[in-house]
Amino acid sequence: MINMFDDTYFMKKALQEAEEAFNKGEVPVGAVIVVDNRIIARAHNLTETLNDVTAHAEMQAITAAANFLGGKYLQDCTIYVTLEPCQMCAGALYWSQISKLVYGAKDEHRGCGALGTKLHPKTEVIEGVLSEEASALLKRFFIEKRNLN
Amino acid sequence: MINMFDDTYFMKKALQEAEEAFNKGEVPVGAVIVVDNRIIARAHNLTETLNDVTAHAEMQAITAAANFLGGKYLQDCTIYVTLEPCQMCAGALYWSQISKLVYGAKDEHRGCGALGTKLHPKTEVIEGVLSEEASALLKRFFIEKRNLN
Repeated sequence: MINMFDDTYFMKKALQEAEEAFNKGEVPVGAVIVVDNRIIARAHNLTETLNDVTAHAEMQAITAAANFLGGKYLQDCTIYVTLEPCQMCAGALYWSQISKLVYGAKDEHRGCGALGTKLHPKTEVIEGVLSEEASALLKRFFIEKRNLN
Repeated sequence: MINMFDDTYFMKKALQEAEEAFNKGEVPVGAVIVVDNRIIARAHNLTETLNDVTAHAEMQAITAAANFLGGKYLQDCTIYVTLEPCQMCAGALYWSQISKLVYGAKDEHRGCGALGTKLHPKTEVIEGVLSEEASALLKRFFIEKRNLN
């Protein structure tokens, strides 16, 4: 039997969030958090709208998921995020003890991999899911932004 | 002329915040953010109260300071925090481009120094201000917690 709820399915939901960010003039990054094939948190980058550097998609999703679950640890959860988490977001994921991190595009300069940010030892990491779609959206954003300035 | 508004003065204010956290049963860490000798944000750790791993003192202080200033960058600000920032908080400080980070006690295991988290190149770092007071409060918290369990 084919499982429709695979990593690609949920990454598409994260990409929809990234598109919402794009439409608001935000760097287009989106995230969803999933438990037992159910999305319990959706978020997209809102740093410009909220005037707050901490308002990355992952940070908001972590807070929303903990709120939904009524506990601060996300041990049975998977986060899908369109771009590799930065130091801040990877640091928050470390504290959350999340089970699984699935990300799309790699961030060669500011991603947690390049900067050596420590994730929780129990966190499984899968990279590159729909990375081309995520990258294309980011590239389109920065090209349009450059042309406007 | 003696300047009463030195690093010790503001670290005492951060320690008062840490004591508030202690009184709420939270790991006692406090922070204040200062511009031109004026405190524009005060916060203490609220991870238990809010059920949210992202609710560290620094994260809340960064959000509050940006809200006060009406802009997300904290380029003319100093943050005073009683404990060395973790990866998440150091990552947030990186994005904020804060001018100066002053911290009290060192966190040998989960501090940004030990874990190699990158701060913004423009951020000056001063460590060890009232570190004994900050450490003593943390030790007291963990001893009391152990005795209660």
